[in-house]
Order: sequence, then C-alpha cells, then structure tokens
Amino acid sequence: MDFKELMLMTDFYEFTMSYAYFKQNKHNEIAYFDMFIRRIPDGGGFMIFNGLHRFIDFVKDFKFDEECIDYLRKTNYFDEEFLAYLKDLKLNVDVWSVKEGTPIFANEPLVTIRGTLIQAQLLETILLICINYSTLVTTKAYRIARAAQGRGVLEMGSRRAHGVDAAIEGARAAYIAGCSATACTATGEKYGVPVTGTIAHSYIQLHDSELEAFRSYAEVTPDNCTLLVDTYDTLHSGIPNAIKVAKEYLIPNGHRLKGIRIDSGDLAYLSKKARKLLDAEGLEDCKIVVSNSLDEYIIDDLILQDAKIDSFGVGENLITAKSTPVIGGVYKVVANEKNGEIIPKIKISGNVEKVTNPGFKKVIRFYDNDTNQAIADILALKDEVISKDEYLLFDPTAPWKQKRIRNYHYVELQVPIFVNGQCVYHAPSTEEVRQYCVEQMDTLWEEVKRLRYPHRYYVDYSQKLFDLKNDLIKQNTMDI
Amino acid sequence: MDFKELMLMTDFYEFTMSYAYFKQNKHNEIAYFDMFIRRIPDGGGFMIFNGLHRFIDFVKDFKFDEECIDYLRKTNYFDEEFLAYLKDLKLNVDVWSVKEGTPIFANEPLVTIRGTLIQAQLLETILLICINYSTLVTTKAYRIARAAQGRGVLEMGSRRAHGVDAAIEGARAAYIAGCSATACTATGEKYGVPVTGTIAHSYIQLHDSELEAFRSYAEVTPDNCTLLVDTYDTLHSGIPNAIKVAKEYLIPNGHRLKGIRIDSGDLAYLSKKARKLLDAEGLEDCKIVVSNSLDEYIIDDLILQDAKIDSFGVGENLITAKSTPVIGGVYKVVANEKNGEIIPKIKISGNVEKVTNPGFKKVIRFYDNDTNQAIADILALKDEVISKDEYLLFDPTAPWKQKRIRNYHYVELQVPIFVNGQCVYHAPSTEEVRQYCVEQMDTLWEEVKRLRYPHRYYVDYSQKLFDLKNDLIKQNTMDI
Repeated sequence: MDFKELMLMTDFYEFTMSYAYFKQNKHNEIAYFDMFIRRIPDGGGFMIFNGLHRFIDFVKDFKFDEECIDYLRKTNYFDEEFLAYLKDLKLNVDVWSVKEGTPIFANEPLVTIRGTLIQAQLLETILLICINYSTLVTTKAYRIARAAQGRGVLEMGSRRAHGVDAAIEGARAAYIAGCSATACTATGEKYGVPVTGTIAHSYIQLHDSELEAFRSYAEVTPDNCTLLVDTYDTLHSGIPNAIKVAKEYLIPNGHRLKGIRIDSGDLAYLSKKARKLLDAEGLEDCKIVVSNSLDEYIIDDLILQDAKIDSFGVGENLITAKSTPVIGGVYKVVANEKNGEIIPKIKISGNVEKVTNPGFKKVIRFYDNDTNQAIADILALKDEVISKDEYLLFDPTAPWKQKRIRNYHYVELQVPIFVNGQCVYHAPSTEEVRQYCVEQMDTLWEEVKRLRYPHRYYVDYSQKLFDLKNDLIKQNTMDI
Repeated sequence: MDFKELMLMTDFYEFTMSYAYFKQNKHNEIAYFDMFIRRIPDGGGFMIFNGLHRFIDFVKDFKFDEECIDYLRKTNYFDEEFLAYLKDLKLNVDVWSVKEGTPIFANEPLVTIRGTLIQAQLLETILLICINYSTLVTTKAYRIARAAQGRGVLEMGSRRAHGVDAAIEGARAAYIAGCSATACTATGEKYGVPVTGTIAHSYIQLHDSELEAFRSYAEVTPDNCTLLVDTYDTLHSGIPNAIKVAKEYLIPNGHRLKGIRIDSGDLAYLSKKARKLLDAEGLEDCKIVVSNSLDEYIIDDLILQDAKIDSFGVGENLITAKSTPVIGGVYKVVANEKNGEIIPKIKISGNVEKVTNPGFKKVIRFYDNDTNQAIADILALKDEVISKDEYLLFDPTAPWKQKRIRNYHYVELQVPIFVNGQCVYHAPSTEEVRQYCVEQMDTLWEEVKRLRYPHRYYVDYSQKLFDLKNDLIKQNTMDI
C-alpha cells in the first residue's frame, strides 16, 4: 500500500475538525477516545479482536509528506500555517489495546487512545478500517472453522474479497481463527500462512481429456495430488478417472492419491458415493475435499448428514463475511483533560444503544480458578482497584440481578501499545496470535460459542462506572 | 499497494497449474478466457462495469521480482527451471474489455484474455478482484444515487470498508455511479473525486457547550458551515443553537448557514420539523443533510414520506454493498488454439446456470435509431458479421420467442485493451468515466433500472453461437 494513500486514509472531516482546533488554539488539549463495537454480528455470542498489527505499523510510520500536503493545499480548506503544522506533526499518543486473537464482546473498549485533539482525531478512520474488517472476518472464520469440527478449512475467497487489502488481511484473519491454510499466495508471503492449491476446471478443459489432464498433473506432483473431479461428471467420469490414475500411475510408482475435490452438486450425496467408490479400490487414505459457497451453517448441516468430507474450501462467505458484512466499530471521545484532571464525556442518544460509556476505562475479565473459564467482564475506571478476593457483579440494565464471585483471577484485557508515541509492545507473529486465539477461545463456555442462539456473556460495569454514567445521563436528559 | 503483494495476489493453484503446464511443455499453447458475472446482485435489472483501470496498470507493470521468486522457492513446489522462467516472464497477452461505466448484464463476456496458458491463468485472481468489487459497488451506488432523485449523495463509508483498498476504490466507484462527493481523502487525492467533511460528535463534546462548538466552527469556516445538530437533542438544542449561530454570527458577518446534519432519530420526522424551524427564521437556503445507515430503500421511503432532505450521507451499506456483498464474477476458459485454429470449449454442469458459453465471442448491443434506447444485447462469435439492417433476436431459453428488429445501430461492447502485451487503450479519467456512465445509463429503459422487480433486459445468442453451444452440449451429456 502506497504510504501516501494510508496517510490520507482519513475521512475529510478529521482534517476540517483538526483545522478548527488549530485555529482556536485548542489543538494541544488532550482527549481520550475509545474504539468499540456496538453489536456482535450474525447473532453470535462473541467476536475475536484482530487488525492491531497494521495500526501499529501505521502509527510508527505516521508522517505527512510533501505530496499529502500538496493535495490538502489544493482542497482550499486550509491555511499555510496549518499545513506546515501537519507536515511537522509527530505522534506522541498513548495507545492501549486488547491483544489480537482475544475474544471480545459488544461495547468493550478495545483500543483506547490518549492524545492531542488533532492527533487522536486523525487516527480515527485508519484505526477503524484496520480493526473492523479483521475482527469481522476473524469472527466469521472462527464460526466456520468451529462448525467443521476439526476438519481442515481452506480459505480460498480472494477473488470475491473487497480488494487486494481485504484478500490479504482476510486470509490472515482466517488462519488466526483456525483455518488450516489459504489459497492467497500474498498472505503466504507476507504472514507465513501455509498456502495450498491444485487445479481448476480450466486445467482439465485445456487437456484433450479429463484422464489425460489427471495423469499429467499426477506426473508433475505425485506426492501432492488432489484431483478436481466435477468438470464433466463427478461420479461417472471424474472419480473413475481419478481412481484409474491412482492405480495405473501413482501406486505403481510408490505414491498415493492425496485427494479429490468436488466443487458442485449435492456435496453430502456425492461425498458418500465418492467415499464408497474410493474405498472399494483400496483408496481409504484419499481425502475428500469439497467447496461451493460454503459457510458455517452448510458445513454444520453436511456433518449432520454424515457427509464423508475431510476438508472444506471456503470462499466468498468467509472473506466478505457475507451473512453480516459490516461490524459496527466506532471511535468515540470518552474524556478530556483540564488542568491535568480527566473529565469524562458522554454522548446521549435517543437510541439507548448509542449512549456511550464515559471516562478513561479498563476491561477486566474474571476467570474461575478451578476451571479457567471466563466468568464475565466488567468495564471499570482505569484507576479503580479491583479486589482479588471477592467481587459483586450486577447487570447494568437490571441492577437487581447480582452475582457475588470468589475464587477467581482476572486480567486487564488492554495492554499498553504506545507510550508518548513510542511503541512499547512486541507484536506477536501470526502463528503466535493463532495459538493465543485457540487458548483464549478455550476459556469461553461452549454455550457462548454456539452458532445459533448462544448464551449471553456478561459485560457489566463496576459500581463506580455505573454511578458515573447515571450521573452524566441525569445531567444530559433529552427532551423528546 | 506493495507491488510484490500484487504479483502474489493469485490463488496458489495458478502457480501449481502453471508449473504443470511448464513441465508438460504445454505452456506456450494459447487459450481464451472470458470474465463474466453469473447473476445481477440485489434482484436488480443491471450492473455497471468498473475496475478495469487497476487491471490495466497491473498488466503494464507485471514482473516477478527476486522477492516473489524467493517466496515461491520456499514453498518447495517448484523447480529452478520454472522459477527462472517466471522471473523472465513478460506478458504478451491480448485483452478485450467492456469500458468502465457501461451497463452490463449477467453472463456477458466483460473481459476476454487470449494468452499462453500460464500468462492467461496467472491473471485470474487479480482480474477478478479488480472487476468484482468495483462493479459491485458501482452498481449498488447507482441504485442509491438514483433513489435520491437528484439530491446529493455523499459517500462516507471508509471506516466500514473491507480494508484500505476497498475504501479508496469504493469511493471512486460511488462517484462514477453518480454520488456527488466522498469523505475519503485518499480517493480525492488519487482520483480527483470531490471530498467533503465537516464535524463529528466528538467536536461538539470537546467544547464546553454545543453553542460554543458551533460558534467556533462557524468562525473557522464561515462559508462552508454545516453543523451536526444531534449530539444532545436535535430539535431542542441542536437546531436552535445552529439558528442562533446563523443569526448572531454568520449573517451579521455576511455569510449564510450552509447546512445542518442529522445523524440519528427518525429522519423523516426530524427533517420536516427542522425545515419549519429553519424557514421560520429566514434560513430557507440552509440545506438539511441526513445520515444513519441509509440505503436505496430507506432513501426511497424518506422521499415518499416527503422528508425535507437535501442530501444524504451514505456509509456502510454502499461501501460494502451490504445487501448483496458478493458479485459472482468468474474467469472461465472458452477456447484454445490448435494449429492456429480456435477450438471452442464448454464447461458442462448439473446446474444449468454454470454451463459456460463457448468460443471466442463478442457482445453486441443494439440501439433503437429513433429513441437511442438499448433494445437488447447478443453474444456472437467474434468473426460473425452482424447485419446493419435487420436482425432476428430470439430467447435462447425459449427459441420460439422471437423479435425481428430494424432501424437500429449497434456497438461492440468490448474494445481492445492490450494487443500482444502492449496497451492500446487510453484509459479515461474518473470524471470522464462518470460522464460516460450517465450517458450509457440513459440508454436503458427506466423499467430495467427499477429498484424492485425490474424488467428483464434480454441478452440473447446469435444463431451461430446458439448452434455451437447446443452441439457442444450434445457431445458432453452428463449421466446424472
């Protein structure tokens, strides 16, 4: 990605607001912004946070070059003094963030930024782009991989991704969520994700016969030979030809047929028939791979129908998160500083969901000491001390519903990423994020991970935050 | 975008197939591939082709550098001879394409590529990414802009786009389809699309009062002052404060209040109330801008309800084409060459929609000489001569339904883009594509452009193509 494009990857109002702050000489005032997601997509019970790695790189490299400034000048909105200010602007923000691969829930502060009004504002769009899409696809991919119950899931949706960036980052997200490999070569190169690929229908069609095509491919890759069997007729041509190549060429030369792929038709019916045909010829080790607009629900159904499938290729429905292709991540001011004091801010709305959680906060996750399962999360003010012995949880929408917990430990989900503009976080590798994601997802109850009608995981408030929010709401009643 | 990433933006099977062709010494054989889209999204009556400009740049710059080759080596799939071949590979493909901004329909060849097996195959994924997403969003954006019936539509969805690439290209697509401007600064810089922006809720919250925030913004941009009025209470705080700033500051200083923006609540109700409040104070020229998860259906409804809205800000539903976020663009072999002769190829499928149209083809669009309205399209073989005087159209799924046309002219929709690897096409500017799109969309009957249950625009076959397809189907019957 052209760095100039990234630096201008802002909504223009961030520049017009910054300009107004600058002209009012407010630009060195300090504010706190929270990035959070309003609702879990697909009626699901959880999301998985992702996309931080790119935001870290962006903040590290942040710099308006001459070309950026030239463009901003041409818009005729800004004066030279402001453009000079932007050109010299160096970030000294503080950033806290949840780690990539962490299960998260609606309305939890995921990334919190403390900075001058201009600095904090200019990061809005790029932060949201990075986190929204990667979090969305990681969540979707986990649902799909989980539905496959341990069978491999190959991400192969690049061609339907919304651009190159989405193809590359979506494939990384899929791997973190538990997919086994990707067809996206660029993601293999960039993030070390395993890549895989075999043949397309065109390969079969560009040989004089299906049999010749299979034989030629087997000769070139005898140890990694998965044959696409549905170009002409899966049961009466594709599979018989694949068996022929296995028996006449691969086996006599000391190899095995690795797999067949079925890309159309009724996958439950065809896979069962295919399994019988293969087994009858002693090819019990030949894997059956299927693809064709799969998602978590179809995979779930196929397994329920006892389809004989070893792995799934998943395209458009994963990479675009087709069932819910938008995640409502937002970036809202939660506080500013006056004379060194933090002043909480709230945004009231007629829509109760849109009332923000005020103040500089932290997210605490409680784990049961015996089971290591997550009990609940609370949002608390950053400087609150959370007892290690006993804690009274209560539902902020129904405060009389309470639960007193003991025998727990807790972690603060956000960790420092930048302190005064300096990166203090060692970003883990993609492989490490994947491993961390597995471990963290294991701490959630199965009921929360259900595809349909999951159990609600509680995200409560500390008493202090609850009182603060109610006080601020009372000061800002609306007349509707 | 890092060029290495673009060169590896291929599904890995394109490399494994290429390797097999190379090892079989088939790699200099020639094939023809068609890119086409199987179905119009959203139950609509048309699509608008877009995304070619990026593919042209890609083909022009095509080159595997040392880093790409190093990565491919590390996958352990390929031998050194093949890697050396790739490193030296220069494209000498022929490419024909529909022009950006052209209305198109399902199953029409949009881009046709003639090239050696490896060259034509390696372009598959990048071509599909470029065309699929831009075509999808242009189509969606046209629906939205048309629903607005001449009112302005501002694209403001970057934060919900699937990555930076999608944000930038999606905003360009929206402008081509008739949106008036974008909030995406990078698209303004890259493509000259008008950008616009004002203030966010955070701006209001970071001042001591709404009134102070409005006043300060009016002072900085008195000639371009649109105030966001829903931070606290639209009717009882936001609009009265905006009026106050107009009357106490802007008007006495020779300016006008340009607009107010409402971002929540019932937009029909609030806009009507707002219009009355503004008009009562002599602010009839103050525009009312609304936003909040809008799409073509909500805009259509708001206008039906006589909402007093001058322009719409549209975010997530446009940039992700949320209602149908996938367009089924595919790339299929349609012919190869043997001894200089073109041999048509077909892909049979149990699903009739998936049976491909064989042969090296062209798309002809007939226009009525009197009205200049498009009559129908036909797919024909490339070397067919189409009469200029009289033509018999027939429905390929019901060949007895015929229509004899006279008094028409026609155009061939695909034009040459690359000849033997050399670009022969002068790509128009974004502004020119936008203008061309307006003109072309004017040639479609209104009935075809309807949001709901549009009239079907006919895409028929020439008699020769019809006969060829039927002959090939007969040679390839399936046993099901």
